[in-house]
Amino acid sequence: MANSKFEYVKQFEQPDNLLPNTWIVVRIDGRGFTKFANKYAFEKPNDKRALELMNAAARAVMGEVQDITVAYGVSDEYSFVFHKTCSLFERRASKLVSTIVSTFTAYYVHYWSTYFTDTPLSAPLPSFDGRAVCYPTVQNLRDYMSWRQVDCHINNLYNTTHWALIQLGGMDGTEAEMTLKGTYAADKNEILFSKFSINYNNEPEMYKKGSVVFRDYELVEPGTHNTSIDADHLAEPVQQSKTQTENDRKRRAKARIVVEHLDIIKDDFWNRRPWLLSNKPGRVPKEP
Amino acid sequence: MANSKFEYVKQFEQPDNLLPNTWIVVRIDGRGFTKFANKYAFEKPNDKRALELMNAAARAVMGEVQDITVAYGVSDEYSFVFHKTCSLFERRASKLVSTIVSTFTAYYVHYWSTYFTDTPLSAPLPSFDGRAVCYPTVQNLRDYMSWRQVDCHINNLYNTTHWALIQLGGMDGTEAEMTLKGTYAADKNEILFSKFSINYNNEPEMYKKGSVVFRDYELVEPGTHNTSIDADHLAEPVQQSKTQTENDRKRRAKARIVVEHLDIIKDDFWNRRPWLLSNKPGRVPKEP
Amino acid sequence: MANSKFEYVKQFEQPDNLLPNTWIVVRIDGRGFTKFANKYAFEKPNDKRALELMNAAARAVMGEVQDITVAYGVSDEYSFVFHKTCSLFERRASKLVSTIVSTFTAYYVHYWSTYFTDTPLSAPLPSFDGRAVCYPTVQNLRDYMSWRQVDCHINNLYNTTHWALIQLGGMDGTEAEMTLKGTYAADKNEILFSKFSINYNNEPEMYKKGSVVFRDYELVEPGTHNTSIDADHLAEPVQQSKTQTENDRKRRAKARIVVEHLDIIKDDFWNRRPWLLSNKPGRVPKEP
Amino acid sequence: MANSKFEYVKQFEQPDNLLPNTWIVVRIDGRGFTKFANKYAFEKPNDKRALELMNAAARAVMGEVQDITVAYGVSDEYSFVFHKTCSLFERRASKLVSTIVSTFTAYYVHYWSTYFTDTPLSAPLPSFDGRAVCYPTVQNLRDYMSWRQVDCHINNLYNTTHWALIQLGGMDGTEAEMTLKGTYAADKNEILFSKFSINYNNEPEMYKKGSVVFRDYELVEPGTHNTSIDADHLAEPVQQSKTQTENDRKRRAKARIVVEHLDIIKDDFWNRRPWLLSNKPGRVPKEP
Repeated sequence: MANSKFEYVKQFEQPDNLLPNTWIVVRIDGRGFTKFANKYAFEKPNDKRALELMNAAARAVMGEVQDITVAYGVSDEYSFVFHKTCSLFERRASKLVSTIVSTFTAYYVHYWSTYFTDTPLSAPLPSFDGRAVCYPTVQNLRDYMSWRQVDCHINNLYNTTHWALIQLGGMDGTEAEMTLKGTYAADKNEILFSKFSINYNNEPEMYKKGSVVFRDYELVEPGTHNTSIDADHLAEPVQQSKTQTENDRKRRAKARIVVEHLDIIKDDFWNRRPWLLSNKPGRVPKEP
Repeated sequence: MANSKFEYVKQFEQPDNLLPNTWIVVRIDGRGFTKFANKYAFEKPNDKRALELMNAAARAVMGEVQDITVAYGVSDEYSFVFHKTCSLFERRASKLVSTIVSTFTAYYVHYWSTYFTDTPLSAPLPSFDGRAVCYPTVQNLRDYMSWRQVDCHINNLYNTTHWALIQLGGMDGTEAEMTLKGTYAADKNEILFSKFSINYNNEPEMYKKGSVVFRDYELVEPGTHNTSIDADHLAEPVQQSKTQTENDRKRRAKARIVVEHLDIIKDDFWNRRPWLLSNKPGRVPKEP
Repeated sequence: MANSKFEYVKQFEQPDNLLPNTWIVVRIDGRGFTKFANKYAFEKPNDKRALELMNAAARAVMGEVQDITVAYGVSDEYSFVFHKTCSLFERRASKLVSTIVSTFTAYYVHYWSTYFTDTPLSAPLPSFDGRAVCYPTVQNLRDYMSWRQVDCHINNLYNTTHWALIQLGGMDGTEAEMTLKGTYAADKNEILFSKFSINYNNEPEMYKKGSVVFRDYELVEPGTHNTSIDADHLAEPVQQSKTQTENDRKRRAKARIVVEHLDIIKDDFWNRRPWLLSNKPGRVPKEP
Repeated sequence: MANSKFEYVKQFEQPDNLLPNTWIVVRIDGRGFTKFANKYAFEKPNDKRALELMNAAARAVMGEVQDITVAYGVSDEYSFVFHKTCSLFERRASKLVSTIVSTFTAYYVHYWSTYFTDTPLSAPLPSFDGRAVCYPTVQNLRDYMSWRQVDCHINNLYNTTHWALIQLGGMDGTEAEMTLKGTYAADKNEILFSKFSINYNNEPEMYKKGSVVFRDYELVEPGTHNTSIDADHLAEPVQQSKTQTENDRKRRAKARIVVEHLDIIKDDFWNRRPWLLSNKPGRVPKEP
């Protein structure tokens, strides 16, 4: 039985290759995680186990998909960045998004019991949706990353104050909400400090800054590289030798993937890690 | 700290809403499943546990995403069909694909130990990619489904014979391949029967026909509905009452989701289950 | 000097092929035609010369692009319909749209002096923009056509009354506008009749119904064809013989392209001209 | 008669906005211009009138569409460049392409009799198709422009030699083709010089380099601006004041649009005209 009669249906598949020479960000978000967090009694305002599970899954994704150069996570979302020269899956959006989402989900479910040792998962299971967005310049990409980290800060300050009013101040949700209506950052800091002796600056970095995941090479002295400029002005379609590509691959595979909680808005983070934007692996640090 | 300075990056998100009034098929495929199957020593040519795990995951997806009307699976792939009137996620391709892929993966990993009781999963974990394709007419959709089922048949007949030559005939892979080169279906049936006394017709239906998943209502007498015609000629943007929509939802929720191994190429399957193409839930059968 | 160094830029071209098996409508609109109409003192509410120039250009477009089955024009817009099986330019949107827009503009400028015998064109010249939209079913396509014709009717009744109030009733634009605010069709008919003895039904058909352009074959007796159903249920990828295709081409080339002012909302127009939806040329009428 | 019943068809229109912050090139090409050139007996290898007509139409397009910063034409094609910050028509591809193609066609037909004084146009009329492509960086854009100019050079050298062999050397087309098969640029230069005493370097610049169209401001001393870097690193979404925008508009309107035949591959052209990439109008030169 030949299959040719029906094969014409393949022509309905439409290409979705993303514009070359642009940075690709795949962002995934937990689906219905408010409900999910309630079901498993996530601690408020931040559940350390849940965040570390997210980070572990993100780290695993980066281990399996070498083309990701950096990832940033906060709450139930994670953004994965592919270098502008990436040609994985011919840059097909659906392949990139579905691969990231599926791999992340697999590890999230698999690692669940490591972080939530007492509460086994049950249906409906956690899941994530995702999408890909292209950013033409390093400036656009960094602004995207900054946007997510500022969002992290705004939400965490709000949530920290909101839950302090409830957990320590005895308010109900509506009262806490009314109290915070129209307040600025300074007001919230003040509420935390004066009412609950909480210095927001001393809150855990993971909560205040989110988590950034990347391959770890030796840091570079600021000023010796000008990454942003370089990265946009890579002579286009650089064809490096196979040997060079293979060497890069090996160095990448050797590099440790780390999860840190750093400021990714200022230049320093990027200047000291030029490999993030240049896509050239750095020097693998010696084991301590 | 206001976030407005960076928010402009949102404008880089590009819409990917699929053309209205077309059937949407989301097909997912196992990533690197040849290697994965070897790692877990899947039985050849078909591993019953692996297929039943796929079916269980697909069933769970359909339970969570009511908008799917029918799904068809074979080997490490599964196709999920959304009715042409579906408006889930405003028909955004990335949301539809990532939700299906993520939910499927979650259940696949979660149910693993139910089907593979002796071999716990370990990294690298199984994952799936996916894509969405639009089909304008019932004929196109059914041709797509037929294409997959014919593919199932062709591959299964080949694999059954190939592995018989190896497992029962003592050939190695290359010899088996050479033996089958240029053969027709009849030749393979003949090899199976004459050499190994295997009547291909008696092979399990799940292997020969794949698996079709759908909500189960009372079957309809053939000839009393003409589904294909009706389904293309639904008066466009039918606005049904909220009560009607709610009733439909409830009937759908009550319906049992079944996995069967039927011929989906011939009209009979579709004619007796008009709800698959009409999207009007049928009559829920009484419990036996 | 080889060109290979720069040729990589070709990979930035992204495909824009429209979904197969859907009706393609390319609609073009005059750019800044309010100003343009004032510059050339178009008569109000309708300028016969301007409309006939539009029709002449549309007729020429259909003569050059055989794949168009029917076109409908009103005011400074024209919609061109490609049959769902059309494969012109591999259905690339930009090629289809730019070809139609360019050909239409060429004839509009070229024929200008035929219809506006006293006023030569001068810069800025008239121009048109365009876009392509896909409609999956005959019902969707006919609803699109009905939408444009209803729009023609609503606008023409309004404009006819508005300009009667000004030209015959001595009002200024604002007074006319205020008079018509909140009125229904019946009110406008009544104003025309009672104040100005104008029976709207006797207005020229071209103004009331717009213009429909198509190849003229012998009309078919209603009831002998069921076009709508047939057109959606064409057995998909019909491969007709080369001879048949060539015959069709010749019959199409022989057919006269006519401009008429008919009701295209009711079934009758379509039922009597089955070739519009079936894409099978009819019988060329004998010369009178 | 309300139109709401049919208005749902509007939802089938799909957005086609091009990625922000990328350079947009709209390239148009003559349709069937080999045949067209024969019909009007264009001179070979270059018809001065035809090229000047193309240039006149391109100049008119740039006069009407201020957002175009530079255009480059060769043979029957023209590329129009929109600055990466352009927001015309919300960057909708179909609007941008159709507007350029239509305006160009209008002027081509309208100006025809100025350049072809003896041969009036007749049906089928000349027409153009077009498409839009996005380039993320200045490097990509300049490589695109270089690609076109190198193509111009390669084709013109070939055509000049080919037609010399025919017109001066008495060969027929096939003989000329065979003679040139496998030859390099140096060989063609040698054939021209030794056989026909033609020094290719003395050929008209318009034939050798094509035509570049831009607004003319005072040239800038090389080295005082570094345009390429600046242009990619414009602080993103710069919001300039309305006054500034209006001032820019006026300066642009005052600038003369010139057609020149220059090398656009080397840096010099771009460095001395920083407004082409910065989109900041320069200083309007005093009338001579």
